[in-house]
Amino acid sequence: MEEREREVLERIERARRRPARLRDEVITLAHGAGGSASRTLVEALFAAELDNPLLAPLADSAVLAAPAGARIATTIDASVVTPLEFPGGDIGSLAVSGTVNDLAMVGARALALTAAFVIEEGFAVERLRRIVASMAAAARVAGVPVAAGDTKVVERGKADGLFIATAGVGAVRDGIELDPAGIRPGDRVLVSGTLGEHGMAIMLARGDLALEAEIVSDAASLGGVVDRVLDACGPAVRCLRDPTRGGLATVLNELARAAGASIALDEAAIPVRPEVAGACELLGIDPLYVANEGKLVAVVAPEAVDAALAALRADPLGARAAVIGEVRAEPPGMVLLETAFGGSRVVDLLVGNPLPRIC
Amino acid sequence: MEEREREVLERIERARRRPARLRDEVITLAHGAGGSASRTLVEALFAAELDNPLLAPLADSAVLAAPAGARIATTIDASVVTPLEFPGGDIGSLAVSGTVNDLAMVGARALALTAAFVIEEGFAVERLRRIVASMAAAARVAGVPVAAGDTKVVERGKADGLFIATAGVGAVRDGIELDPAGIRPGDRVLVSGTLGEHGMAIMLARGDLALEAEIVSDAASLGGVVDRVLDACGPAVRCLRDPTRGGLATVLNELARAAGASIALDEAAIPVRPEVAGACELLGIDPLYVANEGKLVAVVAPEAVDAALAALRADPLGARAAVIGEVRAEPPGMVLLETAFGGSRVVDLLVGNPLPRIC
Repeated sequence: MEEREREVLERIERARRRPARLRDEVITLAHGAGGSASRTLVEALFAAELDNPLLAPLADSAVLAAPAGARIATTIDASVVTPLEFPGGDIGSLAVSGTVNDLAMVGARALALTAAFVIEEGFAVERLRRIVASMAAAARVAGVPVAAGDTKVVERGKADGLFIATAGVGAVRDGIELDPAGIRPGDRVLVSGTLGEHGMAIMLARGDLALEAEIVSDAASLGGVVDRVLDACGPAVRCLRDPTRGGLATVLNELARAAGASIALDEAAIPVRPEVAGACELLGIDPLYVANEGKLVAVVAPEAVDAALAALRADPLGARAAVIGEVRAEPPGMVLLETAFGGSRVVDLLVGNPLPRIC
Repeated sequence: MEEREREVLERIERARRRPARLRDEVITLAHGAGGSASRTLVEALFAAELDNPLLAPLADSAVLAAPAGARIATTIDASVVTPLEFPGGDIGSLAVSGTVNDLAMVGARALALTAAFVIEEGFAVERLRRIVASMAAAARVAGVPVAAGDTKVVERGKADGLFIATAGVGAVRDGIELDPAGIRPGDRVLVSGTLGEHGMAIMLARGDLALEAEIVSDAASLGGVVDRVLDACGPAVRCLRDPTRGGLATVLNELARAAGASIALDEAAIPVRPEVAGACELLGIDPLYVANEGKLVAVVAPEAVDAALAALRADPLGARAAVIGEVRAEPPGMVLLETAFGGSRVVDLLVGNPLPRIC
């Protein structure tokens, strides 16, 4: 080897011995190019914040052991919420809880998450670090590692700051088969708590409403709550859903259609915080259509309703759980709301989009 | 029930009996809201094109049986390629092969993919259908279902047409442990074919270069090729990588660092099509740094090199496979290129980003 070549090697080796340090204040296209800037970003920010043994090899795929014989559940979400940070969370914590909850709703415990970031050139590195740290904290609370990831950078003006896609792999609990086809007339419908907080928190956080109220997003991972309900009721739990985008009304419509049954809701029994009800009324929005990110709907056999309610209420995330309705044979595929005045109205799927980009 | 209520119910029931039909010509915010427009888009476009039993329930999570005792691999990619359609593929087929390949590189056969779409308001529905159909075709070729998905719509100007995140779950083959830490001096480095076609096809497809050449992306799923190599060589295969963003130079640097060894490349043995070499020369880009989306790098024990080469060449996707270098002890962590003129130069990680958004 020539002298010059040896000098080059020594210089590169010295540079490599230094721990990766992210000196940039904003994200540039080079951070998405797969070269040395990408490597620094991944090592000094993503791997540093999300630190766990599955992620450590920084390979494109993570390999994990699944419980023997378990069925595997998988899901993906794109998070495009605006603003990126809001009372009760941010796009990072929201991405984690959304994916953990999608797995929980099929009776699966999350084994690993993966996350892909689409970042707009010029995004502040410190803001990215804050969001990834929040993601890491949410993953720790949910007890699941972020095992692999991908980072892309697009030119200024080609994205809205940051989008995050999160996918998850989980192991479905033995003996649990959550399927709306199993719903029967007489089954009861429960919710784990008050409705509409996430959507209204986002609307208020945008600051373009002439409305002040202290509403905090309910975003949370429901794995522990689901464990309690399934431990208490086993196969008497017909079906679980998280009423996110489109709210309670949308998931109940989906369940009623899939079951070929009707769901009758008792309006007075549906828990809504007064500040959320007030904000909804002022904005002309029905809280039944507003997104939740830390609530679940459970349809359970009638004999299990007390056990399910007690199991939900035993968890801090289910403290305000309530029985809100029951399944009937007629009219099939429909959700009816029985009002406090003795009338009833059809609660249909939403047309249009009163609340864009709430998750 | 009152007469008026009954009429409402009948009208809704009639509407629901009609098969979902997507009448819109462009995507609107309502398609991302979770209500009836979302449902129509999912049923009439995504589920119709990607049609498979795992996806059919249209739940947020899909549940599948994994082979008993298998280790599970998982990965995620965000695709932000521009243009969305290019010679040899589009963002849909690219998203599928990228994820299948990430799984294949850890010795895993893809069991299921999931896909999340971030769509800009105003995107043409027919274009979306074409891309999703291409995704479905690529998934069929790779033998893997798209089992679950998510769709978000952002306002005009807040994304660049379409981004797709794809995640995958695979089962790692028994007895296979692909890990760069297993690389030893004396091991050989193979590539499955000619380099640089994807990146150069994208650059040319952008049309802003004063250069005309017929270069087609090599994007393809490598699951079958990996099966052949692992069948032929088993644990003599130390490590597989797909040289995507950052190209061959980047993955070899990562391997050399992880192995604490040196990789010596024989420049004359590296297969590059003349039209790619010509375009690279005109643009001042080194083909070693240009992305591939249907090629793999294999590091194999010396006794397995002939079997590995034969296995690669037996597959149409590996017809131009070649042995391009070998692993040496010194200098650790470095990649050296031995040129046709007898000299050698360090091939380091790329600084900057000459080829943004090629995947």
